[in-house]
Amino acid sequence: MTFGESHGQALGVTVDGLPAGLPLSLELIQKDMDRRRPGTSPFVSPRKEPDRVEILSGVASDLTTNGAPICLLIRNTQARSQDYDGLRDKFRPGHADWTYFQKYGIPPQSGGGRASGRETAARVAAGALARAFLATRGVTARAALRAVGTVWAVQTDFESAENDPLRFLDPLLSPSAQAEVTRAKEAGDSVGGVVELSAPGLPPGWGAPVFGKIEALLGGAFFSIGAVRAVEFGEGLSLASKLGSEANDPLGPQGPLTNAHGGVLGGLSTGLPLVARLFVRPTPSVSLPQETVNSRGEKVSLRIEGRHDPCLAPRAAPVAEAMALLVLADLALEPPGKMG
Amino acid sequence: MTFGESHGQALGVTVDGLPAGLPLSLELIQKDMDRRRPGTSPFVSPRKEPDRVEILSGVASDLTTNGAPICLLIRNTQARSQDYDGLRDKFRPGHADWTYFQKYGIPPQSGGGRASGRETAARVAAGALARAFLATRGVTARAALRAVGTVWAVQTDFESAENDPLRFLDPLLSPSAQAEVTRAKEAGDSVGGVVELSAPGLPPGWGAPVFGKIEALLGGAFFSIGAVRAVEFGEGLSLASKLGSEANDPLGPQGPLTNAHGGVLGGLSTGLPLVARLFVRPTPSVSLPQETVNSRGEKVSLRIEGRHDPCLAPRAAPVAEAMALLVLADLALEPPGKMG
Amino acid sequence: MTFGESHGQALGVTVDGLPAGLPLSLELIQKDMDRRRPGTSPFVSPRKEPDRVEILSGVASDLTTNGAPICLLIRNTQARSQDYDGLRDKFRPGHADWTYFQKYGIPPQSGGGRASGRETAARVAAGALARAFLATRGVTARAALRAVGTVWAVQTDFESAENDPLRFLDPLLSPSAQAEVTRAKEAGDSVGGVVELSAPGLPPGWGAPVFGKIEALLGGAFFSIGAVRAVEFGEGLSLASKLGSEANDPLGPQGPLTNAHGGVLGGLSTGLPLVARLFVRPTPSVSLPQETVNSRGEKVSLRIEGRHDPCLAPRAAPVAEAMALLVLADLALEPPGKMG
Amino acid sequence: MTFGESHGQALGVTVDGLPAGLPLSLELIQKDMDRRRPGTSPFVSPRKEPDRVEILSGVASDLTTNGAPICLLIRNTQARSQDYDGLRDKFRPGHADWTYFQKYGIPPQSGGGRASGRETAARVAAGALARAFLATRGVTARAALRAVGTVWAVQTDFESAENDPLRFLDPLLSPSAQAEVTRAKEAGDSVGGVVELSAPGLPPGWGAPVFGKIEALLGGAFFSIGAVRAVEFGEGLSLASKLGSEANDPLGPQGPLTNAHGGVLGGLSTGLPLVARLFVRPTPSVSLPQETVNSRGEKVSLRIEGRHDPCLAPRAAPVAEAMALLVLADLALEPPGKMG
Repeated sequence: MTFGESHGQALGVTVDGLPAGLPLSLELIQKDMDRRRPGTSPFVSPRKEPDRVEILSGVASDLTTNGAPICLLIRNTQARSQDYDGLRDKFRPGHADWTYFQKYGIPPQSGGGRASGRETAARVAAGALARAFLATRGVTARAALRAVGTVWAVQTDFESAENDPLRFLDPLLSPSAQAEVTRAKEAGDSVGGVVELSAPGLPPGWGAPVFGKIEALLGGAFFSIGAVRAVEFGEGLSLASKLGSEANDPLGPQGPLTNAHGGVLGGLSTGLPLVARLFVRPTPSVSLPQETVNSRGEKVSLRIEGRHDPCLAPRAAPVAEAMALLVLADLALEPPGKMG
Repeated sequence: MTFGESHGQALGVTVDGLPAGLPLSLELIQKDMDRRRPGTSPFVSPRKEPDRVEILSGVASDLTTNGAPICLLIRNTQARSQDYDGLRDKFRPGHADWTYFQKYGIPPQSGGGRASGRETAARVAAGALARAFLATRGVTARAALRAVGTVWAVQTDFESAENDPLRFLDPLLSPSAQAEVTRAKEAGDSVGGVVELSAPGLPPGWGAPVFGKIEALLGGAFFSIGAVRAVEFGEGLSLASKLGSEANDPLGPQGPLTNAHGGVLGGLSTGLPLVARLFVRPTPSVSLPQETVNSRGEKVSLRIEGRHDPCLAPRAAPVAEAMALLVLADLALEPPGKMG
Repeated sequence: MTFGESHGQALGVTVDGLPAGLPLSLELIQKDMDRRRPGTSPFVSPRKEPDRVEILSGVASDLTTNGAPICLLIRNTQARSQDYDGLRDKFRPGHADWTYFQKYGIPPQSGGGRASGRETAARVAAGALARAFLATRGVTARAALRAVGTVWAVQTDFESAENDPLRFLDPLLSPSAQAEVTRAKEAGDSVGGVVELSAPGLPPGWGAPVFGKIEALLGGAFFSIGAVRAVEFGEGLSLASKLGSEANDPLGPQGPLTNAHGGVLGGLSTGLPLVARLFVRPTPSVSLPQETVNSRGEKVSLRIEGRHDPCLAPRAAPVAEAMALLVLADLALEPPGKMG
Repeated sequence: MTFGESHGQALGVTVDGLPAGLPLSLELIQKDMDRRRPGTSPFVSPRKEPDRVEILSGVASDLTTNGAPICLLIRNTQARSQDYDGLRDKFRPGHADWTYFQKYGIPPQSGGGRASGRETAARVAAGALARAFLATRGVTARAALRAVGTVWAVQTDFESAENDPLRFLDPLLSPSAQAEVTRAKEAGDSVGGVVELSAPGLPPGWGAPVFGKIEALLGGAFFSIGAVRAVEFGEGLSLASKLGSEANDPLGPQGPLTNAHGGVLGGLSTGLPLVARLFVRPTPSVSLPQETVNSRGEKVSLRIEGRHDPCLAPRAAPVAEAMALLVLADLALEPPGKMG
């Protein structure tokens, strides 16, 4: 469970259920935090947020878990809310400002409050703990970009993506993807993208066949990431227009021989890598003029100037990893014969 | 919570949380059940399952709810498991047979057991209760087919879809869609499809901005329906390749003026109809020969003869409705200021 | 989760989480049901309720669990609600009639509805499943009467209690206890009692040290049994007036040497038998005249004639067992290192 | 959900579900914290723990709630674990040390770790938030001592108890209670006590009739407080030896006329003050020699010297209040017609 708002004092998360005796380290958590952090390339927002993580509880003095809830805290150090002053009373299209105002009576906020992408820092910190635990079971998860705007990766190279400024899966096509982002940025606009998640190492039989389907748990978790508007597993949406004889993966003695199913069939893992794709909309904050209203219901025009990512998808990738790791850690801790 | 297996004694569901004083009727539940029932057109499996619902608890003698958990029971009357005898020891590709065997040690089953589509009858029964409750709030949900195989509906006509043999949204293109299913059926094959769900009547502000996002709750619920391999909200996946300036819906005094966002922004309803699409894979049971193994790990060829739907999507539509109604009923019962 | 009301069509319970492969039998469940059943001695209500249990789901054809939710159903066959007609509009003191009317607008009911003792039949059925599962871990639970009215058992003989008409723990003092009940019954009155639960076989370390304390889980479960007004663990309430030097159990290499702590210290089992006592109030339905009001708020006098137990405690014992078995089964299924 | 250990870096709690718009203040939280704090009288442990609370999230800049999870943090400043050095390898009788070692493999700890009374500071902080919320509904809760050792209060004076060094309910008998504690302290021993909780202001009909009984929720919450060994509601345990005709509270047009039932009947509030009593065992840490073993299983004698409360009950009172406030706040936020 995360807590904390974009421009409040701190963010954090409390993780319950990890077994005692798991060695942690701040470096390990920080490594994942740094992958999410803005300011690392020209393609993401230039804010400098150090995002230092403190472990407040749940560990012995050598940072080995003791089985108790682990609270991770991240102080907010850079809250330049003056950037947002000019638009304080105007609802931003594509954001939750207007519905927030309807539901909570809170006027258009600086920085998006609880709905801000900043809250995901806490998820990444929790995901780093789940990663350390899953490593003991031989399971991991990694995410990178399958598409940026209209450019789709043909190769699938997670290693090179890790050092690519857009985390793009295809080193040959990355320059085209970068050009697309640059073009949008210079026009005061933004682009979307597609995050691909791969989780190798699951043995067959994790998950459950009905409400506890892996797709249901992961699907819900991925849709809790802001700006994700569609999710697919395996060959997903393209299967809807195929024939049954084309869509089935043939079976061998060790399980499915191909992976159109994306590593999960009928809610249970098959032993092949779990593959999912998250479709991320373009950043709603653009500096082109937009038609909107203010809190008195008057029509106004809006130009958003602040520091914003021209493409959210590269930063959504580590969050998708974190959510996958958290869901998989829960599954790893389930009693074996569960069929819920 | 549903219980029951395809070829066990009975199916059922226990629904908790509905307020006292809501009038129910068996006709009302039966009406939804009949929409899910196979045997209603040449395009779905010809099994005859009467699916009569009994209300075992939670109602007064006039069938008004009394606030207690409501248990709905559906007896299994037609279990012709001999149809499956020939394939009892072979794992069916595209089904969960093989992973079931890995996890539970249960050999390839007749009818799919708990993972069978039969379990969804209990969900539809529960959804009918949620529908009766949401009607008191002016909210409803309906689902029909946006696509069958490679044929996409251009029109959106939920009324005509209700009487269409494929529940297709476009009366002009329904004959083409039917021809595509017939062609696959005659070839011993099957086709996929896309279910579109529309839920009008939500006031702005239902849902929550973080883990309780409407997309997260509905997304998880939709992926718990077997054969659903992708889910999108609003213009969903197509937004990933658009520019921000194209993707935002402008705001007027009553909220968004257009609905590319699909009725939900940042996890909260905007007052426009909720729109989601579920991409359903083709039926994995095809009568063409498939490559597989038996429970001794030997390579075998498999031809599945039983009674099967050439296209699952028309029957997935009422289940998608039911899941949406159950999630929305939960949201309607949440305390107002929640921001979880 | 149980469902069903006293005078509705059926009662039942859905049990989730039991592992696949556990052999069940109807005899085994029925045996526990019969222990709860009224009509077995002159000291309990003479209603004849056969309480036949049906297993609707979750088992293979040989009644071995398959890991899916198990639904148990008990039809209501004897609903002589005419017995209650005379008092239909008067609120019964000591019952929840008046608060029900305030909360749900339901007038004083025949038989108590959802709040009736009848609902506990479903708990006992579920408890029988938990008992079968815990037997595979060497854990069991049994309950009998430590006190009836003012008569306290000195001996602790669970075997003889099983055949005692009052389930009294002390065969020598049972006649005195019986005389006390007979005296109250003849005077149109009722008596209370104390149920003692003993659960041997827990290894050290089940439970958790904070919110998941065994005392917290069991305490909550015991207070969910109607008419239970106090609960203690080990020497419980008498410890409040002792000195620390008297209250501590000394430790040996195998754990505590004595059991004033009742088998649980700081939320965790110690390896000694779990011991708890439930203080059950006298049956609120007495045939002596009582001062009350009717649903129009008018003062009236009330005499309750129906068939009622002069002492509820003997029937509360199997329910206490069932609740303990259900809580312990949950603990047995928890991941090992949990410290929540 | 609380986190944090006795001698770790910090304690805290995350509170979810409070509606937006509730004004908070640090003074208000601190006031409740100070009531729990040791060092306030000769009868409680002389440790000086300032227990300053920080609000990390969930509030606007004027400390009004914004509906998001509220994280409260309490830094640990005084961790004199050297006090415990002498006993580091000996299991303390009456503590959870031995079972901890069995379950988590953690050797006898300094300060009790997660099982320490220190964790309750986080509960009191959360309770202060619940108190602020419930005040808007006219509900409150207060707790004081009904008994200390063998001295029972005859009067019920919550106001004078607030300033009494033992929080004793009877100002005339407080000197006798103090003498009993002093005597035990001088002998290196400790005494138990009984906490009485009273919560006035609940309207009729809060709670639910089956598993959601107020007694079940509060009973579970009270037993999650360390050292509580028995809990009763209303006249509780004494009802077990009464006749039904004596135990029932007669009904008038506004509900029960007397309060032997303790404000809750059949799980639902009756409109009279909720009354519960918690029986607290004597502090297990005594400086008299005790028989125990060390982590190598060798028999040893143990004298505990550290700073310990001769009577835990006065400090358990504010924790009991906090737990009651948290449970009641949850009930206040439930949908109205619930019958779970």
